[in-house]
Amino acid sequence: MRVVAKACSAPLRALAHSAPFPSRSHTCGALSSKDVGARVVLAGWLLPERKLSKSLSFFPLKDSYGTTQLVVQRRVADPNPSADQPVDPSLAALSDVPVESTVLVQGEVRLRPENQRRPDPAGDIEVQVNSFTLLNPADRNMPFLPSDTQNMANEDLRTQYRYLDLRRSQLSANLRKRSQVAHIVRNVLHEQDFIEVETPILLKSSPEGAREFLVPTRATASARTADDVPKQQPLFYALPQSPQQPKQLLMCSGGVDRYYQLARCFRDEDGRKDRQPEFTQIDLEMAFVSWGSDAQPSDPWRIGGQEVRDVVEDLIRRIWADVESVALPDRFRVMTYNEAMRRFGSDKPDTRFALEIVDAGGRLPSGVVTALQRSGETIDCLAVRRSRDAAFSDAAQASPTEGDAERIEITPANVSSWLGDSETVRRLLSHPAAGDPRDVAEMLSVAPGDIVWLAKRRDPPEGGSTVLGRQRLRIAELAEAQGTYTPTAAPHFLWVTEFPLFTRADEDKAFLAKGRWSSSHHPFTAPAWQDVEALYEGRIGEVRGQHYDLVLNGVEIGGGSVRVHDASMQEYIFSEVLQLDARERAAFGHLMHALQCGAPPHGGIALGFDRLMSILCRTASIRDVIAFPKTSAGTDTLFKSPAPVDRDILYQYGIQPR
Amino acid sequence: MRVVAKACSAPLRALAHSAPFPSRSHTCGALSSKDVGARVVLAGWLLPERKLSKSLSFFPLKDSYGTTQLVVQRRVADPNPSADQPVDPSLAALSDVPVESTVLVQGEVRLRPENQRRPDPAGDIEVQVNSFTLLNPADRNMPFLPSDTQNMANEDLRTQYRYLDLRRSQLSANLRKRSQVAHIVRNVLHEQDFIEVETPILLKSSPEGAREFLVPTRATASARTADDVPKQQPLFYALPQSPQQPKQLLMCSGGVDRYYQLARCFRDEDGRKDRQPEFTQIDLEMAFVSWGSDAQPSDPWRIGGQEVRDVVEDLIRRIWADVESVALPDRFRVMTYNEAMRRFGSDKPDTRFALEIVDAGGRLPSGVVTALQRSGETIDCLAVRRSRDAAFSDAAQASPTEGDAERIEITPANVSSWLGDSETVRRLLSHPAAGDPRDVAEMLSVAPGDIVWLAKRRDPPEGGSTVLGRQRLRIAELAEAQGTYTPTAAPHFLWVTEFPLFTRADEDKAFLAKGRWSSSHHPFTAPAWQDVEALYEGRIGEVRGQHYDLVLNGVEIGGGSVRVHDASMQEYIFSEVLQLDARERAAFGHLMHALQCGAPPHGGIALGFDRLMSILCRTASIRDVIAFPKTSAGTDTLFKSPAPVDRDILYQYGIQPR
Repeated sequence: MRVVAKACSAPLRALAHSAPFPSRSHTCGALSSKDVGARVVLAGWLLPERKLSKSLSFFPLKDSYGTTQLVVQRRVADPNPSADQPVDPSLAALSDVPVESTVLVQGEVRLRPENQRRPDPAGDIEVQVNSFTLLNPADRNMPFLPSDTQNMANEDLRTQYRYLDLRRSQLSANLRKRSQVAHIVRNVLHEQDFIEVETPILLKSSPEGAREFLVPTRATASARTADDVPKQQPLFYALPQSPQQPKQLLMCSGGVDRYYQLARCFRDEDGRKDRQPEFTQIDLEMAFVSWGSDAQPSDPWRIGGQEVRDVVEDLIRRIWADVESVALPDRFRVMTYNEAMRRFGSDKPDTRFALEIVDAGGRLPSGVVTALQRSGETIDCLAVRRSRDAAFSDAAQASPTEGDAERIEITPANVSSWLGDSETVRRLLSHPAAGDPRDVAEMLSVAPGDIVWLAKRRDPPEGGSTVLGRQRLRIAELAEAQGTYTPTAAPHFLWVTEFPLFTRADEDKAFLAKGRWSSSHHPFTAPAWQDVEALYEGRIGEVRGQHYDLVLNGVEIGGGSVRVHDASMQEYIFSEVLQLDARERAAFGHLMHALQCGAPPHGGIALGFDRLMSILCRTASIRDVIAFPKTSAGTDTLFKSPAPVDRDILYQYGIQPR
Repeated sequence: MRVVAKACSAPLRALAHSAPFPSRSHTCGALSSKDVGARVVLAGWLLPERKLSKSLSFFPLKDSYGTTQLVVQRRVADPNPSADQPVDPSLAALSDVPVESTVLVQGEVRLRPENQRRPDPAGDIEVQVNSFTLLNPADRNMPFLPSDTQNMANEDLRTQYRYLDLRRSQLSANLRKRSQVAHIVRNVLHEQDFIEVETPILLKSSPEGAREFLVPTRATASARTADDVPKQQPLFYALPQSPQQPKQLLMCSGGVDRYYQLARCFRDEDGRKDRQPEFTQIDLEMAFVSWGSDAQPSDPWRIGGQEVRDVVEDLIRRIWADVESVALPDRFRVMTYNEAMRRFGSDKPDTRFALEIVDAGGRLPSGVVTALQRSGETIDCLAVRRSRDAAFSDAAQASPTEGDAERIEITPANVSSWLGDSETVRRLLSHPAAGDPRDVAEMLSVAPGDIVWLAKRRDPPEGGSTVLGRQRLRIAELAEAQGTYTPTAAPHFLWVTEFPLFTRADEDKAFLAKGRWSSSHHPFTAPAWQDVEALYEGRIGEVRGQHYDLVLNGVEIGGGSVRVHDASMQEYIFSEVLQLDARERAAFGHLMHALQCGAPPHGGIALGFDRLMSILCRTASIRDVIAFPKTSAGTDTLFKSPAPVDRDILYQYGIQPR
């Protein structure tokens, strides 16, 4: 039915079909040689015509399931066409339909000529079109053609017209895989008796809130009265950076023994590379998790939370089995923070390649050792040896030196004296009892042509990476770019445990830390049971936390911990270690009280779902696994947000521009 | 390990157990008679002791799975206890453990004496305790005891201490069922090839935004530059009231053929009864949905969107089969809006009981009919007859009369003349050609003792209910309260279709409507194909929309529609019917453009998940199916939000209190 808009003043474009049409019988991509001869109805997007002759054309018809080749015969080649295959001369009009229009076609499935068959779905058949309906014509001047992957528009344009970019098969396949993985996650967790609980998005602003989003509200008079707040003062919710407190309260309640949620989280921070202001976590928490063992365990996982580890390993194994067809080991490797920092210079080491760092501290002359110990330092060495590290050797030659590391090329002249010749070491040798470094110069068994980097670092290690850890990664990146090193296809999963519970406060960690110490992860992480005494005795730097990070190929994909369930321990950490003031502690009042009401031991984890999907989809950015992402600056160029709001609207919320 | 806090100045309460403990072997509620003799480790919350004798006590131990009876023998009755069953005199200390503390017990499963067995899980066994560990002592002065369901605290207190209230089995069972239903929904939709897509929570404020939440942002300089906004102006996202626009854009993209999401939605409105500022919808959308049929369908569903209907009916059938063990019919009943309004006086009729309204308009004297027609009205009658409507008869006697309805008691004196005696009718009889109402007085076959209500209403019907529709519900509520009427246990599902696409604008619908008309549901709903011509010819009041509501027992649990996919039709509706100005239309610029890029016909629905769960859990309020609900005023008394925020924090967002 085509009607003319009589009352409409604006010029109308060609009308779409707004009337009944037949149901599609198949999706594009569902047909195969076993359907040959069937009369079918397909609907999809018309891709560019390929004219074979004056009377014969091919059109790919695409939908989100696949692409079917349409064959259109515009003129009757045979003067006596069979009654079974009438050819409608009006089919010529299909050539006038703009590319990317939605059309509905009726036709018959035929086998493709043998030389035209393709291995993809519906690749061995074609559909001879008998009639078509133009459901909706596409504009002839679209910003870009999503099917033209040879000439892709720039990312800004594609982001602004995301609804066109999503028509690209690669992106829609990412969304499909994301949905598939979410479903695997839910199935595994439901099998294991987890309860999905939705926690509030409209929460309370917190003292951790340096990066939180506020939500002003047109709170009613009754709401204001309930809070004893003067009528004129604007009131705000805040969006959660994670459901940490609600999920701990759920555990304290005892109403839910195992909680999970694919939780939306929010962080208002300046465009850090490949971060989104809203992101999704696979968030879970379990009651009555272990606090470790009295016995010396055979397993390197010595902290508590084994139940969380079991669930996550099962979950990851199932995802990799279903999506990647890869059988992961029964147990993922476990490494302590100290070992990771010492051997790989990173708290999320990429263990796919060796290039291990050696702690030379203990092997130096005793005078040097003493001097280092006095300053709480050691000396790390990273050697790239032509013989053993061939894949990285050229990259090491070309790689710039990180930070204050010292680079030494091994030559025939210095091969036995390079350590003593090092500036880093020589400066320490001024100590009277230094001794002769040549005794240990061969410890790395280097040969001429090899390259060694040396750098001092804090001992025990601190922070997330060391200078030589960064040097190691830079060499590997360069080697990969140069093609001399190809990372193994097998994913390297790794747990990192036994982090220090507290780290010296610095400016980046200024929140929730008035004194010398801040929480390495968050203030609810429990100490290792072996270190509870050290905690209460004030040996804060020695206390290891029951925190665990899950690392994949050098990328942190999740982290969690056993939590403090003892109200007095939590109070001690807040007051004595972190030295929070009364107001800051008040923000945790409900959690403190919940701990006093018979909270069970509990622990959990949050896995970054966007990051995980980005790895599984092998995308350069997490934006490619999110339907409607924001730019790294937090802007949404499609929906045009954030945006200014009229003063009179703001007035209703009790606020105004400053 | 118990350590004393040396450095702690605050007085400490009794310490919890923060050291290794054995893993539980079973949950409370998992044991049965087949475990008799097994040594088990259980963990849970200790409920009040029941002393049987000086040496023997029972303690229920509860976790989120169930309750197990613990038997504690404090003194050795037998002077020669078997070596297998040592009795630890220290067990006496269990009596000193505060109620609601978490404890870990080790013991042996025994069969209960026959007279003490109960049919609930673990009801036929008990566990003889050999030893216990106090994991975390509960405060002796908790605000209330969740296990004491006989003396439940008032709702305000329970809401403030939600983490205690959730320990109540009834509430935790609701959360478990909610998770179960969410999983059924996801399984059904995944089976049907739906893709779960997460749409943005941080969206753009819109002209519909009368009830939306704003989110100010510390937008970066780069973000501001991108939007050409002066540096000082604060910028805002807005939280979505529904993912309507993102999901339509997904359909337009063609990248996703069938979308679903359990979507969090937000509405900042004054505490309407049993509404929450954040709520969850089962949200779905499908490409290439039907636009109805050319032929006269046998089915009363005459509009398009049959695919959505099929999916939803399947979904609901599966939920009721799995959760309620009820087999719902293959097809749900369908009724047009006009029929629902005429027969039941409601666009969400409760069809579990009859008490149907009769349109007396056409049966009145022709003069009256003419007068009514001239004013666009008719007269409705609701008769409650002692003979046929016995269950409602007493309630009808006691029920107050709604609005401007007229109530007539049928007596022997007026039984044949009541219609003519009615004020409502008499006022119309002043018309010269009125005729004699006694001719039709018997149309309702009433008898003395019956009661009839009459009321004029608009014809064709308008709005969501009529005076007599409300009268009908009030009578039924009263009858149910009086016990004369018990609603049938079988759920009555009903589709209501063929709503008017536009309704006359009134103050409640002022948004997005500058002219005479506003959208009955939303401006993206497509007209019935039969009414496209009427739309373009300006006969706006005649146009039916392709909207469908799903009603259960008189409660609307969802609604959706086939959407406009024709950009020119959407433009016509915006400009000519709703008379939006350029700025309002600009807010839909991306959707308009997406429609121009080959958007497929599409449609969907959103089901209210909280409401659905409230019905399935038979709760009085949706708050009882939400883990951390807000009050009807939108306040969260647990997390204490919304709350004021410091001026210097607001300053960072470019705002200040007004």
